[in-house]
Amino acid sequence: MNKPYLRLMFNPSLENPIFVQGLPGFGNVGKIAAHLLIKFCEAQAFAELYSPSFTDYVSVNSKGICHLPRYEFYSAALGKNNFVIMTGETQPSFDDVVAHYYVCSEILDFVEKLGCRFIVTIGGVPITEEKAQVYVAATSPRLAMEFMEKGAVLYSKGRIVGGTGLTLGLAKERGLEGLCLLGATTGFKADRGAAFAAFKFLMKALGNEIKEGL
Amino acid sequence: MNKPYLRLMFNPSLENPIFVQGLPGFGNVGKIAAHLLIKFCEAQAFAELYSPSFTDYVSVNSKGICHLPRYEFYSAALGKNNFVIMTGETQPSFDDVVAHYYVCSEILDFVEKLGCRFIVTIGGVPITEEKAQVYVAATSPRLAMEFMEKGAVLYSKGRIVGGTGLTLGLAKERGLEGLCLLGATTGFKADRGAAFAAFKFLMKALGNEIKEGL
Amino acid sequence: MNKPYLRLMFNPSLENPIFVQGLPGFGNVGKIAAHLLIKFCEAQAFAELYSPSFTDYVSVNSKGICHLPRYEFYSAALGKNNFVIMTGETQPSFDDVVAHYYVCSEILDFVEKLGCRFIVTIGGVPITEEKAQVYVAATSPRLAMEFMEKGAVLYSKGRIVGGTGLTLGLAKERGLEGLCLLGATTGFKADRGAAFAAFKFLMKALGNEIKEGL
Amino acid sequence: MNKPYLRLMFNPSLENPIFVQGLPGFGNVGKIAAHLLIKFCEAQAFAELYSPSFTDYVSVNSKGICHLPRYEFYSAALGKNNFVIMTGETQPSFDDVVAHYYVCSEILDFVEKLGCRFIVTIGGVPITEEKAQVYVAATSPRLAMEFMEKGAVLYSKGRIVGGTGLTLGLAKERGLEGLCLLGATTGFKADRGAAFAAFKFLMKALGNEIKEGL
Repeated sequence: MNKPYLRLMFNPSLENPIFVQGLPGFGNVGKIAAHLLIKFCEAQAFAELYSPSFTDYVSVNSKGICHLPRYEFYSAALGKNNFVIMTGETQPSFDDVVAHYYVCSEILDFVEKLGCRFIVTIGGVPITEEKAQVYVAATSPRLAMEFMEKGAVLYSKGRIVGGTGLTLGLAKERGLEGLCLLGATTGFKADRGAAFAAFKFLMKALGNEIKEGL
Repeated sequence: MNKPYLRLMFNPSLENPIFVQGLPGFGNVGKIAAHLLIKFCEAQAFAELYSPSFTDYVSVNSKGICHLPRYEFYSAALGKNNFVIMTGETQPSFDDVVAHYYVCSEILDFVEKLGCRFIVTIGGVPITEEKAQVYVAATSPRLAMEFMEKGAVLYSKGRIVGGTGLTLGLAKERGLEGLCLLGATTGFKADRGAAFAAFKFLMKALGNEIKEGL
Repeated sequence: MNKPYLRLMFNPSLENPIFVQGLPGFGNVGKIAAHLLIKFCEAQAFAELYSPSFTDYVSVNSKGICHLPRYEFYSAALGKNNFVIMTGETQPSFDDVVAHYYVCSEILDFVEKLGCRFIVTIGGVPITEEKAQVYVAATSPRLAMEFMEKGAVLYSKGRIVGGTGLTLGLAKERGLEGLCLLGATTGFKADRGAAFAAFKFLMKALGNEIKEGL
Repeated sequence: MNKPYLRLMFNPSLENPIFVQGLPGFGNVGKIAAHLLIKFCEAQAFAELYSPSFTDYVSVNSKGICHLPRYEFYSAALGKNNFVIMTGETQPSFDDVVAHYYVCSEILDFVEKLGCRFIVTIGGVPITEEKAQVYVAATSPRLAMEFMEKGAVLYSKGRIVGGTGLTLGLAKERGLEGLCLLGATTGFKADRGAAFAAFKFLMKALGNEIKEGL
């Protein structure tokens, strides 16, 4: 393996699916939010992406079975929305910038083929004082405005690092639309609260109300 | 995206254009000088260069709109001169030497197609005592001499790091002519004075006098 | 040389060979165990793998003869088993993750052509208290169970770093079966004891009893 | 430029040329020895090798003229010997192992085409006490022996780092013959003495006596 490699388990039947990406990062907000969505939608794993730039170790599970680091793709239908959800346990090394671009481009190639035209990346944004808020950045002023009206705070004059930023930036270059939701987190620990806030906001914004007690 | 990618917005009509490159670096002299030139010439943005080796984050502007790091190309006519001006907000990581060569070569491929045969790179050179001076290095002794006669100080027995040096060095290998103007800067802050000196010198040397009060 | 390169000295005649890989690492367990197996089986060197990602120096032997870093492949028959054994004096740099994947994939391409369908990688696992044990991780629960019944301890919820993990993880992706044996070692020195334990366990599990006094 | 690039100024007429390589390194022994040989033979520069892995700066000479980092090839005839001599002002970064292999392979491709079948690399070897000695490692025991008889000390059980080792190791893989001469140096400064010793030894071994007072 000397380049990213995609394994398709089955071909999901999806109508205008929304792509949601949540990867490890600040407070693990993205990854946890993706897992909440997967659970909530009872999403089905249908594909895996491997890359020689992930990490040079294998993980061994509780049954002693090893597997290469990978990104996993899930499909789901929820109300009027179809989703492709991607999460994973790693990101390319921050030293290997080219690998980051390459992997994010492979992801977009794949989800475009599946019909995704709208991209949502979820991550964490480090804050110094705890305050539950979801920030939004977008590919267009109209979209940014729309999600601010739904309750998100504008994320302006900042950076969005790693796959959370690049997937959205590359999507914009391809003429896709989308947004990044950033859960405010102090980032010191896995922040399930911030992840839940980002997840809940996304569900509400898309018309799927979540009860607090989930 | 796994290699540099150029997006052309329109094809400028240019006659014997001079290519001027100003990138971030010591005192941000190159970048600021390029922006001064863009403003002075009322130059029009006509192309963007993206590269997977720039940075693995996206920048978000004051309206919450994200975009990938990029180099921007502007075209302008000023007096008898036509210009292609390039600036940007980043450079490839200093660790990734190959990427530096690759991106600078892509730039030259592009500006050669636009008809540029003369290359000017602008940067800063760190000095210990503040003294407004513009240094020059060139692709030939004749050119170095010509610009010394116009008031620049010879930059000799030194190095020119990053894109400021490589674009010129690679241009020379292609048989293009050009020079590097280095504004003397203490480099501790964005040095608008050094950038203005380099910009003003270039304008004067090309026959476009600038008034002090710009 | 800008990619891995294989040199074949002769084509061994092998029936359903088992591939055994032992590389330098924690306590040098893998490398020493591979050498014990090579000696025990009187295995013959038949191929060498070179890679531009190994190290940028050559080693000079006691006779002043230099050679590039390389992996060496040996073939052997022992009882009912045929073996392809691979060892070496280096691994790609831990910084160069892609090279690790690439080299391990080249190894699997080669041993698959030789007919290997079962992969055993041997390494060390760092422990704080000295206790002679051999841990096992596998490509399937059935295999993990089988080797636990033969006396290995389940290695669960951990990582296996470098080639020891990647060769097995990549083998699993190709539909090959296999396991990783990890000799427990404090890792402070070359641990011949841990290597012998891993070697002995493998021999016994494959039906070749080893006497203690080897 | 995204790979090494060779510029040929003229095609030298050479009979069974010996390739001699001297690059910067410990005490700059290799580079200085190559320059001594170039001067002694009145060798002519006939080719240059550029590589995107050298350094990301250009050097500026005393006349303000910039040039990219490069390796330079010289040809010369001296007594019964023809030489191709290569030196340069840089080596690829020690972090970029693959680039090291790639550049050394390009060098060998080129000098093989010129008819070189015998390779001599010159470098320094760090020692703690000053003692003028020239060490030798070779591609075969016969060659090592031959040059020990001519006065060199066997370099055994060591490493030869960078291009000095790799060019020889890669040459051996191609079936070429050759040796590495290592001038003993404390390495704290450019060591002209060690370089002269290596140069003088090479000349004497090839049948060209050098007077002390050179």
